[in-house]
Amino acid sequence: MTLPARLSGVLCPVVTPFKTDLSPDPDRLIRQSQWLLSQGVGLAVFGTTSEGNSLSVDEKIALLDRLAEAGIDLSRMMAGTGCCALSDTVRLTRHAVEVGCAGVLMLPPFYYKAVGDDGLFDSYAGVIDRVASDRLRIYLYHIPPVAQVGLSIDLVERLVRRYPDTVVGIKDSSGDWDNTLALLRRRWDDFRVFAGSEGFLLRTLQHGGAGCISATANVNGAAIRRLFLNWRDPQAVAEQEQLDALRRLFQAYPMIPALKAVIAAHTADGEWQTVRPPLVALRTEQKRSLLASLDERAFAMPGLPGRHCINP
Amino acid sequence: MTLPARLSGVLCPVVTPFKTDLSPDPDRLIRQSQWLLSQGVGLAVFGTTSEGNSLSVDEKIALLDRLAEAGIDLSRMMAGTGCCALSDTVRLTRHAVEVGCAGVLMLPPFYYKAVGDDGLFDSYAGVIDRVASDRLRIYLYHIPPVAQVGLSIDLVERLVRRYPDTVVGIKDSSGDWDNTLALLRRRWDDFRVFAGSEGFLLRTLQHGGAGCISATANVNGAAIRRLFLNWRDPQAVAEQEQLDALRRLFQAYPMIPALKAVIAAHTADGEWQTVRPPLVALRTEQKRSLLASLDERAFAMPGLPGRHCINP
Repeated sequence: MTLPARLSGVLCPVVTPFKTDLSPDPDRLIRQSQWLLSQGVGLAVFGTTSEGNSLSVDEKIALLDRLAEAGIDLSRMMAGTGCCALSDTVRLTRHAVEVGCAGVLMLPPFYYKAVGDDGLFDSYAGVIDRVASDRLRIYLYHIPPVAQVGLSIDLVERLVRRYPDTVVGIKDSSGDWDNTLALLRRRWDDFRVFAGSEGFLLRTLQHGGAGCISATANVNGAAIRRLFLNWRDPQAVAEQEQLDALRRLFQAYPMIPALKAVIAAHTADGEWQTVRPPLVALRTEQKRSLLASLDERAFAMPGLPGRHCINP
Repeated sequence: MTLPARLSGVLCPVVTPFKTDLSPDPDRLIRQSQWLLSQGVGLAVFGTTSEGNSLSVDEKIALLDRLAEAGIDLSRMMAGTGCCALSDTVRLTRHAVEVGCAGVLMLPPFYYKAVGDDGLFDSYAGVIDRVASDRLRIYLYHIPPVAQVGLSIDLVERLVRRYPDTVVGIKDSSGDWDNTLALLRRRWDDFRVFAGSEGFLLRTLQHGGAGCISATANVNGAAIRRLFLNWRDPQAVAEQEQLDALRRLFQAYPMIPALKAVIAAHTADGEWQTVRPPLVALRTEQKRSLLASLDERAFAMPGLPGRHCINP
């Protein structure tokens, strides 16, 4: 196998479909992934939006195998592999490398809080040294609002300097543009900075960033991709504003159940609404109002597999 | 097998020993558990102090099997089984029940923050309904300073009312006496409220609580147990003050590495200092000052297996 190229563009933390018994549904995941790729969107499976930490390592390994068997283009995919236990992170990361993922998106261990940079450095180094593969490409995952354990810029720099061919990028989901800008300004050699949502996409690209990895790409990927391609054009600011408006609409609801509700409606496949606890599916009235506001905007998900049916 | 009796007394979240390669060491864990039981202290393996969330489910299952094979009295043990993924929590909880643990200490799923009581209720109910055993005894684990996801008293009440024979107690590690007191005042039928540290032990017992589950029981269990037995005696207040003084001494350091450093010194077994990242072992000067301050108090760990050697 050739060494993986570094990723850029718009990637989607693919929502994980569950059956009614709460088991993961590989067939729906394959279809959603195929659809996203057809929209020009790359894949970031097992992210926060994917309920990645609500899946066991065994379940994630089985899903990776099914995606690979289905011929999904793994050169356009990163897999979320950061768990609380070093042993879990090593096992899952190793598997992602073995099946041929272009990269992994790696949370720090997130149970213990207020840990220092030394311990977080040891965590990443412990994984890298144990996986010991020249094919491993790590995109660090900085999402302090959820993980509560963040990655300081000093820590990122230590990792990049120690492992320049392995630690190749970061997803900054801090929601703090100053932090993203500080990362962009470091300009480490070919280091890929992804905005954590499309809200910062234009600014990230203007400052030399690689793209974004965004929850709403699950439903609006083609439009986000368009801005990625056209960011130097005069209409870019207007396109960014349109993306922001759609994003705000989703942000009025719990994001993951809202995305699943919309996919369920657009594919006329109610099982898509299923989430694992501790998440809760949208209530009927929430679903109705979300879909009505999308209807008002003539929102569409072109080429989505399944019957198109916007009404709940 | 008979149905498990509800637990009370002083339990210890047993520190998990690691070998230098960071693999768990079942032999040292068995010895530490035997020593704790000999001090009259019950066992709460895979708690926060145990680095429980730094272990994979496979590692925890293997350790449970080794403890059972070694003849450890599982009727005096609860095992931490709450993971982020429902599938992990179900698998580990089922195994704990099958080997004969008296109970499980169950964190809520802790990756997603600001989830509601409905989702947390579904999480616990999802485990209980899937494990489906009349031998399952759950002690809820409320530790918002670390998990960041807490259990409201309303949620606890909903669970107790729905599953009165299964949800039988709680460890309150909120550090908020008002919360512990509010739980104690509910007086649900035979519900066991454990203080999250010995700092609240006397007050908890005075209000009808079951005991405490405390990190420092790893080194000071016999003295904590003494207060549990003597809490109605005149000297109880003085005993509580002594426990508090020793606890404060440990709190000047990162607790888990400090406990391991003291066990390492008292057993003359340096490998005991090993922690898994993101934790970091005490630095030499920290270790020296901690052990010196224990020496000043003539602190002892009676009957600890291994050579007694207080000096680092």
